[in-house]
Amino acid sequence: MERFISCISVLGVLLAASFCQHAEAGKLRFSSDGQFKIVQVADMHYADGAHTKCLDVLPEEMATCSDLNTTAFQWRMIKQEHPDLVVFTGDNIFQRDSSNATASLIAAFAPVIEARIPWAAVLGNHDQEGHMTREEVMAFIVKMDYSMAQMNPNFLHGDRTTIDGYGNYIIEVEGPAGSMFENKSLLNLYMVDSGDYSFIPQVSYYDWIKSNQQVWLQQASAEIQKAYRGVKPRPQTKAASALAFHHIPIPESFTTPNASNLGEKNEASGSPSLNSGFLTTLITMGDVQAAFTGHDHLNDYCGAADGPLFLCYSGGFGYHAYGKAGWPRRSRVITAYLNGNAASWDDVSHIQTYKRLDDDGFTKIDEQTLYTNYVLSPE
Amino acid sequence: MERFISCISVLGVLLAASFCQHAEAGKLRFSSDGQFKIVQVADMHYADGAHTKCLDVLPEEMATCSDLNTTAFQWRMIKQEHPDLVVFTGDNIFQRDSSNATASLIAAFAPVIEARIPWAAVLGNHDQEGHMTREEVMAFIVKMDYSMAQMNPNFLHGDRTTIDGYGNYIIEVEGPAGSMFENKSLLNLYMVDSGDYSFIPQVSYYDWIKSNQQVWLQQASAEIQKAYRGVKPRPQTKAASALAFHHIPIPESFTTPNASNLGEKNEASGSPSLNSGFLTTLITMGDVQAAFTGHDHLNDYCGAADGPLFLCYSGGFGYHAYGKAGWPRRSRVITAYLNGNAASWDDVSHIQTYKRLDDDGFTKIDEQTLYTNYVLSPE
Repeated sequence: MERFISCISVLGVLLAASFCQHAEAGKLRFSSDGQFKIVQVADMHYADGAHTKCLDVLPEEMATCSDLNTTAFQWRMIKQEHPDLVVFTGDNIFQRDSSNATASLIAAFAPVIEARIPWAAVLGNHDQEGHMTREEVMAFIVKMDYSMAQMNPNFLHGDRTTIDGYGNYIIEVEGPAGSMFENKSLLNLYMVDSGDYSFIPQVSYYDWIKSNQQVWLQQASAEIQKAYRGVKPRPQTKAASALAFHHIPIPESFTTPNASNLGEKNEASGSPSLNSGFLTTLITMGDVQAAFTGHDHLNDYCGAADGPLFLCYSGGFGYHAYGKAGWPRRSRVITAYLNGNAASWDDVSHIQTYKRLDDDGFTKIDEQTLYTNYVLSPE
Repeated sequence: MERFISCISVLGVLLAASFCQHAEAGKLRFSSDGQFKIVQVADMHYADGAHTKCLDVLPEEMATCSDLNTTAFQWRMIKQEHPDLVVFTGDNIFQRDSSNATASLIAAFAPVIEARIPWAAVLGNHDQEGHMTREEVMAFIVKMDYSMAQMNPNFLHGDRTTIDGYGNYIIEVEGPAGSMFENKSLLNLYMVDSGDYSFIPQVSYYDWIKSNQQVWLQQASAEIQKAYRGVKPRPQTKAASALAFHHIPIPESFTTPNASNLGEKNEASGSPSLNSGFLTTLITMGDVQAAFTGHDHLNDYCGAADGPLFLCYSGGFGYHAYGKAGWPRRSRVITAYLNGNAASWDDVSHIQTYKRLDDDGFTKIDEQTLYTNYVLSPE
């Protein structure tokens, strides 16, 4: 929890919480050693804590297993990985089994908040299945401590209804403090609401990312790329790297990755039956290196789709989510590294990922490079 | 050519050309017997007329075959079918072989203009391969006599550059003159520019319909549907039927239609290697019954994609386009019929299609119903 400690060291313990919260809500930046680490938490399915039993664990684990195991796993990841950001990729709560949705949300995100780790979330298809609507759930998440989440951009006519979904926003990660890029984003995180269920009678199952969300994202990406090309003292010569996060995988997440897959493919995908073109949008944008989804709890692979873009599952994190007994719950770690050194931090040199299994050894598996852009230092 | 004759009868021969041109440019409507017939002309590949030789015809036909055969086929369709509208679905000219692009355009569309038939066109991938840009070609087409083509809508910020392509527009077909729906569109034709070639290095081959075009189309469709719900004396209770026309087929044109296919599938599709979600957009709009494309000259089938929406090829029309010797050039006819009778023309009752082969017998093949919505008269 380097970030928290550095905040304390600057402002003292009493001010730390509010300052860090405010500072992190406005800015995220690479660490002084040129790294930025994200922990992805997919499908917690949180409900009523100790009263909500686990699904699909071994018989001997069942009696004592509850949502609290999900909480413990979140703490374990925080303490082991010291992430700069935790991204929750939807189905954060399973509202259908929750007696109080706000209490479920507070409990689900309690570890990151208590640890004062900046975090972000998108909605899944189960977050709103109760008294709280999707809009209300996202509005609540936006206001929670250390949350980087935002509702939606002011797009088109300044009317939020002109873009579909709730929780479409961008998080910029700036260069290390004191570096030439301390006021420029070197890594952009595109958070997208992939909806819940098809609203068209003849199309069954899951929802998709709409054209208007894609137009917003393309325009926003282009504007970010343009903005930083003119910034002094050193303009960016190429687009900053970007990563996308959304809940429901696109059809190509299941169909396209193959030879480059690292991880397991244990179930058919719950991707929408229609292709809404999101991969085309991501490839067209040109800055996105990988997209990370949840939804299919038993798929946890990363593979390259058309072009060099990687499509990655995380595998199920939550104990009150369907799983496979004996197949440990898991979490994905994603780290971006900068080119150069402390004097000349530049763009991202490479992005790596691995997963942690919530097993006895806290096993680290499937280390994989998603992007490389090494630049030799000018000697 | 009932339309032309009726114009003449009203205004006299001298005024007919300018009046009809203006009237048709502003309005198209169902005939007094509740029908509207479209002839689709796909891939003329017109160049230098008599100087441009045919491709892929029988050896004995080669010596005397040129672009003039394409012209003759267009005349033959006009005289046989008396269409209310001719839609040219791109690759109208093959500019690479044209010594003068405007002359090629004038020659390519000469029959419909001389016959004073309203017509519309979208661009293909070959229309601009010379001195004239895509924008210039479409601007020229927009200004030609009897052309219903438009450049692009005023979208978003009123800046044409906010929507991709040239020639994205909507043609409304109103009810029969004197009917309760004489000022309401009962059939909307969505004309979309499917681009030319991929602009992304790692994505090869053909272009795709962009998200911003899709957002425009969805919004335009919704606005049309809303507008006519309040019009007196009789508001529309449901969306008018719609048909889409564009040059490059979407991936699903080749992969999805199967059991319902009527026609031939003789070549792999030149659809884009990326799916940009246009089928999802069409299905989401809810009013589109079928989409008609060209581009693959040897595919001429119609089949139902997800939902009841039909995806239809026309088969190659032009003699200076690749084809298959002995497999006649062809054209698709699409007719929409209204429910009710002269006193109560209502919405579209059914849409039918067939093709004409440019063979000795002018053979009519593959009659097919694309949509039915019969409403029994309230007796």
